[in-house]
Amino acid sequence: MVLCACYDHRAVNFTRRELLSGLAVVAGNALLPASRLAAAPASDLRINPARLRESLEGLSVFGRPPDGTFADGVSRLAFTEADLAGRKYAMELMRSFGLEPRIDAAGNIFGYRAGSDPARRSEQAPKPILFGSHIDSVPSGGNFDGDLGSMAAIEVLHTLAEHGVTTRHPLQMAIWTNEEGGLIGSGIAAGVWQPSDLTRMYHGISMADGIRKIGGDPERLAEARLRPGSFHCYLELHIEQGGILYKDRVPIGVVEGIVSIDEYDVEIRGFANHAGTTPMPERRNALLAAAKLIEAVQAVVTKEPGRQVGTVGQLQVFPNAPNVVPGLVKHTIELRDLSAEKIAHLADEIQERAKQIAAETGTEITVKRTQHDPPAIADPGIQQAIETVAREMGLATMRLPSGAGHDAQMIAKVCPIGMIFVPSVDGISHSPRELTRWEDCANGANVLLQTVLLVDQSTA
Amino acid sequence: MVLCACYDHRAVNFTRRELLSGLAVVAGNALLPASRLAAAPASDLRINPARLRESLEGLSVFGRPPDGTFADGVSRLAFTEADLAGRKYAMELMRSFGLEPRIDAAGNIFGYRAGSDPARRSEQAPKPILFGSHIDSVPSGGNFDGDLGSMAAIEVLHTLAEHGVTTRHPLQMAIWTNEEGGLIGSGIAAGVWQPSDLTRMYHGISMADGIRKIGGDPERLAEARLRPGSFHCYLELHIEQGGILYKDRVPIGVVEGIVSIDEYDVEIRGFANHAGTTPMPERRNALLAAAKLIEAVQAVVTKEPGRQVGTVGQLQVFPNAPNVVPGLVKHTIELRDLSAEKIAHLADEIQERAKQIAAETGTEITVKRTQHDPPAIADPGIQQAIETVAREMGLATMRLPSGAGHDAQMIAKVCPIGMIFVPSVDGISHSPRELTRWEDCANGANVLLQTVLLVDQSTA
Repeated sequence: MVLCACYDHRAVNFTRRELLSGLAVVAGNALLPASRLAAAPASDLRINPARLRESLEGLSVFGRPPDGTFADGVSRLAFTEADLAGRKYAMELMRSFGLEPRIDAAGNIFGYRAGSDPARRSEQAPKPILFGSHIDSVPSGGNFDGDLGSMAAIEVLHTLAEHGVTTRHPLQMAIWTNEEGGLIGSGIAAGVWQPSDLTRMYHGISMADGIRKIGGDPERLAEARLRPGSFHCYLELHIEQGGILYKDRVPIGVVEGIVSIDEYDVEIRGFANHAGTTPMPERRNALLAAAKLIEAVQAVVTKEPGRQVGTVGQLQVFPNAPNVVPGLVKHTIELRDLSAEKIAHLADEIQERAKQIAAETGTEITVKRTQHDPPAIADPGIQQAIETVAREMGLATMRLPSGAGHDAQMIAKVCPIGMIFVPSVDGISHSPRELTRWEDCANGANVLLQTVLLVDQSTA
Repeated sequence: MVLCACYDHRAVNFTRRELLSGLAVVAGNALLPASRLAAAPASDLRINPARLRESLEGLSVFGRPPDGTFADGVSRLAFTEADLAGRKYAMELMRSFGLEPRIDAAGNIFGYRAGSDPARRSEQAPKPILFGSHIDSVPSGGNFDGDLGSMAAIEVLHTLAEHGVTTRHPLQMAIWTNEEGGLIGSGIAAGVWQPSDLTRMYHGISMADGIRKIGGDPERLAEARLRPGSFHCYLELHIEQGGILYKDRVPIGVVEGIVSIDEYDVEIRGFANHAGTTPMPERRNALLAAAKLIEAVQAVVTKEPGRQVGTVGQLQVFPNAPNVVPGLVKHTIELRDLSAEKIAHLADEIQERAKQIAAETGTEITVKRTQHDPPAIADPGIQQAIETVAREMGLATMRLPSGAGHDAQMIAKVCPIGMIFVPSVDGISHSPRELTRWEDCANGANVLLQTVLLVDQSTA
């Protein structure tokens, strides 16, 4: 998309006037001639915060624990009755202002709103601007992860409809299928998941059967594929799920990208022996080696500046008895950073430390990479656009990586992406205690609305 | 028993002649007058090593894996068909030389051989010398743990019978019920286990039903209780299960006692959070704290000389997912030493370190003692007697604690105890690879025989 070329990511502090005037020249790239831009949008247009809150509260009853309240969160796992009910609710909201929902073969829900450009049926027609999120949750999850971006997408279209604003580009909202189960709907749309991936079980139901249950058609999966280059861009509003914005009291996060994730399986082989009869110097204790390696992961990841994280989250001991020196430990190491090179180099250092620890403890240690997700970098022009509209609304912004995965990382294979983050109180998510203040929800939805209107003014 | 008073444990290197002559005076305790001792035993009497091997090989088929050989070990769990068959085999061996087996209410198998002392029915009658072991195994165990001591006990009585040697004290051999499941038979005999303990399940059968199955009677459990003071002493031959004797090429271990075991449950509470969105400095990582504590246990236990051991053998992580910072870790700490004071003081140091680690990692750590087994010290006189007979046979000895639990620790509540250890190749036990060389088996059985004959010469 052209925004990327227009707004160099090194440039900051453009006003909307400058962006649209065609006068700003950045790194040798002139902005588009003003003649190709649509009329300036209604920059004072705002969503209805009370209605957004009502939508979120309305959605929160589907998957709520019996006799629970909003504060008890939801278990709205994809393909469950709660998910079905939540989807039905979302589609009713869409219809309430004349937006007809469509379910694709992957079970994704779309809502399409035509643009004003007369060339829309030609090859030169402006491409749709896509935006949305998901409404499925983890077990015992909260009311904002996914829900906010989905209800805000509906609210943006509702606001435009009630104010009679027609954008130049068509607008298309999306509620993606089963985000929590592995970005299933967006991954199918991006061509990452194939029919063979749908045999996998998810909480007792195969992905294929689940998709069938929610109105998709796994036999016609290819039809759900979004052709690369067929959208102007994809925008997603989401809660941060971390505590950075909340701690620093910044209402709007501008996501630089979704981090690269490398996962490793570690196997430490010592020798299981009697804890009473094996003298300390004779032991080949796999758990002692694991303890040293867990500390090494922490030391390697934290010794240089940056936002990289490293986690040993899963660990199993064998035979796991109080009176047996552990003979085998298996654990994971997960490394995340926006730079794939950085985590590769951290992994190399951890491998070195593992060799030393194996020698010290008389164990054998293997560290094997089992998963590599490359980073999905947000379009620099869209990052700039989000900052611009936020500033115009008087909202401070901060650029930060997304440490969590999102549907946007799949859609990055289809078109340029951008993500807007809003603060999570205390950084808590995937928990009934997940909370984003109503004011922050409204701010995020307004930034989404205004970013849609701003990117609508660029060519495609 | 009087041996304890006669042979001060600080004294070493008595000859049999000195021990029996009444001339040696140790720490102010005169030996018994020679007139009270029986005639000198046949000190050149030896067991039949080929028959002992045959007994062990014969026993090894019960619980052997299908199509396996001796080297494949046994799964002869108490109360299984394999255990029943092994017990039947042992009782047939006893009957083969006229020793009638008796099963008590706890399922223990006893064989009684009368002594020569005419006073046997009076209050002053010499008390029986008790010796034996067990024949049940752990799952996938070996052919020597328990089996050797049991088959050697039979072999000792067989040797005495075929040579027409009658001891002054009655002799009583024992095969204790379900040693591996918690010293069940010996614990009942010692009055440690009560009927209420027998509701506990063991590999799918309650202890009570198991005892019933092997011919005991859990309703008459009190009858299985051995009155304290009613035996002259208890002797047990056992494989070391550690690698000390094997490594130092010492054929006979003189057990100083069975170590005290303290077990602790540790609970480390951090905060479970998203591994992608929680910056490293914000984490309260329970597994990182556990890693530090595991290293602290190792450091505290190994920093002073001695044979104390400390083990973190069991550990669980919650929620135990690669992408979640661990919020909770539970693990055990087990400390063993012959000195209960020493392990109490090590535990205090570990508690101190746990406090520091909790402060460093932002976690809460509780360390709670869940089990305390006091040590069972072997009678110093019996230790001396074992050394004496071994030296007379030209066998080197080493004093060492038993880091593993044994039936002898229960019977220590009934009478003085002594244990003879023989080397385990590479220190391996509770494994099909458990191995004690036939020569070492025979040496151990001969030391048992001669120790029986030597302690038979002391009063009671």
